[in-house]
Amino acid sequence: MIPDQAMETDILITNIQLPGRLGETPLVKDCSIAIKGEQIVRIGPADEFSSVSGKKIINGQNRLAMPGLINCHCHGAMTLFRGLADDLQLGDWLNDHIFPAEAAHATPEMVYWCTKLAAAEMILSGTTTVADGYFHEQEAARAFSDAGMRAVAAQGVIGFPAPGVVDPADNISAAGAFIDQQQADGPLVEPAVFAHSPYTCDPETLQAAKALAREKGVSLFIHLAESRSEPEMIIGMQGESPVRHLDALGILDPDTVCIHCVWVDDADLDILAASGAGVVVCPQSNLKLASGIAPLADMLARGISVGLGTDGAASNNSLDMFREMDLCAKVQKCRNLDPVAVPASRILEMATSGGAAVLGREADLGSLEPGKKADIILIDVDVPHLQPMHGVDLLVYGAGKAEVRTVLINGQLVMEERKLLRFDLAETMQRVRALAEVVYRSNHSGAS
Amino acid sequence: MIPDQAMETDILITNIQLPGRLGETPLVKDCSIAIKGEQIVRIGPADEFSSVSGKKIINGQNRLAMPGLINCHCHGAMTLFRGLADDLQLGDWLNDHIFPAEAAHATPEMVYWCTKLAAAEMILSGTTTVADGYFHEQEAARAFSDAGMRAVAAQGVIGFPAPGVVDPADNISAAGAFIDQQQADGPLVEPAVFAHSPYTCDPETLQAAKALAREKGVSLFIHLAESRSEPEMIIGMQGESPVRHLDALGILDPDTVCIHCVWVDDADLDILAASGAGVVVCPQSNLKLASGIAPLADMLARGISVGLGTDGAASNNSLDMFREMDLCAKVQKCRNLDPVAVPASRILEMATSGGAAVLGREADLGSLEPGKKADIILIDVDVPHLQPMHGVDLLVYGAGKAEVRTVLINGQLVMEERKLLRFDLAETMQRVRALAEVVYRSNHSGAS
Repeated sequence: MIPDQAMETDILITNIQLPGRLGETPLVKDCSIAIKGEQIVRIGPADEFSSVSGKKIINGQNRLAMPGLINCHCHGAMTLFRGLADDLQLGDWLNDHIFPAEAAHATPEMVYWCTKLAAAEMILSGTTTVADGYFHEQEAARAFSDAGMRAVAAQGVIGFPAPGVVDPADNISAAGAFIDQQQADGPLVEPAVFAHSPYTCDPETLQAAKALAREKGVSLFIHLAESRSEPEMIIGMQGESPVRHLDALGILDPDTVCIHCVWVDDADLDILAASGAGVVVCPQSNLKLASGIAPLADMLARGISVGLGTDGAASNNSLDMFREMDLCAKVQKCRNLDPVAVPASRILEMATSGGAAVLGREADLGSLEPGKKADIILIDVDVPHLQPMHGVDLLVYGAGKAEVRTVLINGQLVMEERKLLRFDLAETMQRVRALAEVVYRSNHSGAS
Repeated sequence: MIPDQAMETDILITNIQLPGRLGETPLVKDCSIAIKGEQIVRIGPADEFSSVSGKKIINGQNRLAMPGLINCHCHGAMTLFRGLADDLQLGDWLNDHIFPAEAAHATPEMVYWCTKLAAAEMILSGTTTVADGYFHEQEAARAFSDAGMRAVAAQGVIGFPAPGVVDPADNISAAGAFIDQQQADGPLVEPAVFAHSPYTCDPETLQAAKALAREKGVSLFIHLAESRSEPEMIIGMQGESPVRHLDALGILDPDTVCIHCVWVDDADLDILAASGAGVVVCPQSNLKLASGIAPLADMLARGISVGLGTDGAASNNSLDMFREMDLCAKVQKCRNLDPVAVPASRILEMATSGGAAVLGREADLGSLEPGKKADIILIDVDVPHLQPMHGVDLLVYGAGKAEVRTVLINGQLVMEERKLLRFDLAETMQRVRALAEVVYRSNHSGAS
C-alpha cells in the first residue's frame, strides 16, 4: 500500500468509525474504507486516503463499520411457520406441527418467497452470509441470489418422503444434481448437503451424504445432539452418544458442520476437537424448544471452531443475529453462574470471523481487511441506547437490528439507509402473507 | 356507551389493529380508539365510531395498538455507566466499579441528563411507565416529567455515604422530603422509597424506610435475594433467608416490591405469596451478572403478583422491554427444560397488566379499556420479521423496539413516528456523552 499513489476505487466510505481494540479507545473515529470490485482494498485513518477516489462515496458520519454478521444456521423458508406452533417440546413441535406443515405447504414457490423474506429480514439485521438448509434448495439459492445475499445453500437429505423428493432413495441424487447446478451458477451462493439428523437418517444415508459432499468438495451440515432424548431416537446407533455415532460412521472432518451440540460430554468434545469439525450453537432456538444450553466455554477452550446461528424462524422466532449474540453471551453466564465465561468480544468474533472459519471461508470473510470480500455493515451509533459507548461490548449487549443502516455484500450495495435495493420487499411480504393465509386456514378449519 | 350519540374526543386513532384473543384470529383489524383528556373513552370495531370525532386523528394503518409496557425496575441515571464494566461478578461489579463510579460522578446534573436519556430510550422502545430508583431522585423525577413519561420515582436509602446524602443518618429524612415535594408536583411521577438491600441497610434502616413509606402512603422497593451469596452478606440476619429476614422485620406487605428474588426456596415463595408483596424479575441483569434465573413459574403458580424489569443500563445493558420479554420467556423454558413453563402470552401480561398490579395501578394502567389511562403504543406490523403473524406471541418472540412508532402517555402524544416530541434528544445525548468522557478519562487515566 502506497498512500500517496492515486487510486481509483468503486466505493469509498468516508468519515466512518471503526471498532477499537479491547482496553483502548472504544471507537476509532475518522476512518475510510475503499472497495474495488468485490474486495476491500484499503481501510484505515482518513489521512491515508488523500489520494484515493471513489466512483460512489458513502458518508459514514455517525456510523460504525463492522464486518457483516455470519448466520451459520438457518432454514430460511421456515419464515412461513414463524409463530405457528410456539411453546412446545421439540418432538411434538417437529412431528405434530412442523413436519406435517412442511409436507402440506413446502412447495418450490413457498421456498422461493419465504426464503426471500428471510433474506430481507437478515439483511435488515446486518447478516451478510447465511448457511441455509432446506428442501427445494435451488429455490432458496435463487432467492438469496436475487436478494444479493451471500449464502451456503444446503439441500436437505432426510429418511422419509420430503418436499421435492418423494422417494427417500432419491435424496442423494437430488442433492448431487442441486450441487452441480449451483456450482455452475456463480460464486455468491455456494452449495452444500444437509443431512437432517442421525434420528431421521439411517447410517447408510448419512455415509452416502458425506460421500457425496466429499466427491463434490462441499460442506456437510447435520443437526446433532440437540435434545436430551436424541440418543434414544437414533437409527442404528453406534457408540454411546450422537457424536460418537457420527465418529464411528466416519462423518466427522473439517468439512462437516455440526449444529446445536447441546448434549455433548467431555469425550464428545474431545472427538469434535480432534476431528476438526465445526460446531454451530443456536441459543435462542435451544431455549425456545427447551433443549438446553450448549457448553460453549468448553468448546472454545478446546479450540473447536464455533459459529453462531439463528435456526429457522419457526423455532426462534427471529433471524436477528444481534438478538442471538446478546442472548448467547448472557445465557452462557448462567450456565455455570460465571459472568466471565464467554466475554462479549468472543461472541462478536463467533458471529463474524468464527462463523467464517466454520464455513471454511476465513481467508476472505469475517473481518474488515484489505483483500477480504467487502461484506460490510454500517451501524448508526447516534442513538440513545448506544450512549455512551464505553466499549465495543455494547455491540453485543445493546445494539439491535434497527441500527444497521447500510449493507454491502461482495462489494455491492444491497441496502442503503434501510432501503433494500435488490428486490421489492412489499411484494415479498404480500406473497408470504398470502401463503400464510392458507396455512392458517388449514390449521383453523371451521374457525372464522 | 351509546354508539350513535355524537362524541367529541381529543385524539382518535383510526384503522388500527388490536391483539386478538388466544386461539382466535391473531389480530382484529379496522378498530378505533378514542381518547379524552387522560383516558381512553372508547375502543373497538370502527363501526362503533361513526359518531365519534377527534380533534387530532392518528391514522393507524399497518399499526397494532397495545398498552404501553411497564418497566418495574430501573435505575435510569445509570445509563452513564452502560458498558463501563461488563462481564464481572455482582460483588466485584458493585464494589470495585459501580459504587466508586457513583461516588465520583452521580451529581444532580448527571442524574437529570442520564435519566432523561433513559426516558428517551424507554419511550423509543415502548415503555410508558417505569419504576425508577436512584439517588438525587428529585432530578430523575424532573427528567421523567420533562420527557412526559409516567414513573414511580423512588429515593434511594443505603447504609453508607451516598450521592446527595453524605451522612447515612439523613437517609430517611431526605427520602421524606423528596416524597413531600413530589406529591405536591402532580400525578405523572409518583414518589416512593428504595431501600437498596438487606446487605447494604441494617434492620433499623429497613424498618425506618418501611415506616416512612407507610406514613406517606407510598411503595417500598428493595433488591432481594439477587445472588446466591446474599445471605452471608446480610446485616443482622434474622431467619434463614433474605425473604425470611424481611418477613421477620415486618417489611413485607402489598405495598412492598421485592426486586430479583432469584434465590428463593418454597418457604420463601409461600411467605411472599401470603404477604401480598409484589415481585419484579429482571432476567437480563440476572443473567449478565450470572446471578441465576428466578423461579418465575413457581411464583405465578402461587398467585404472586409479578412484574418485569430491565434493571439499570450498567447491568443489562439495554432498557428495552421487548428484549426483556423475549429473554424472560426463553430463559424460563431452559430452567426446567420445559418449553411450556411460562407461555409468551403470560410474559406479555407481566409486562403490562401484571406490572400495573405490582405498582398498585391495576385500576388505571396496563390494558386498553375505556376508563383507563391512555398509555398506548402503536407497533408497525408491516415489517419482514413480523410476517406472517400467526399469533400475538410474536410480540414477545419477534417484535423489537424499532417497531414502536408512536407513543401516548396519559393521553398525550410523546412520540410520533419515532420522533420524541417533548425534549431535544440530540442535546440529551450530547450532555451524556460529555459526562461519559469524564468517566472514561478517569478510568483510563494515563491512556490516550
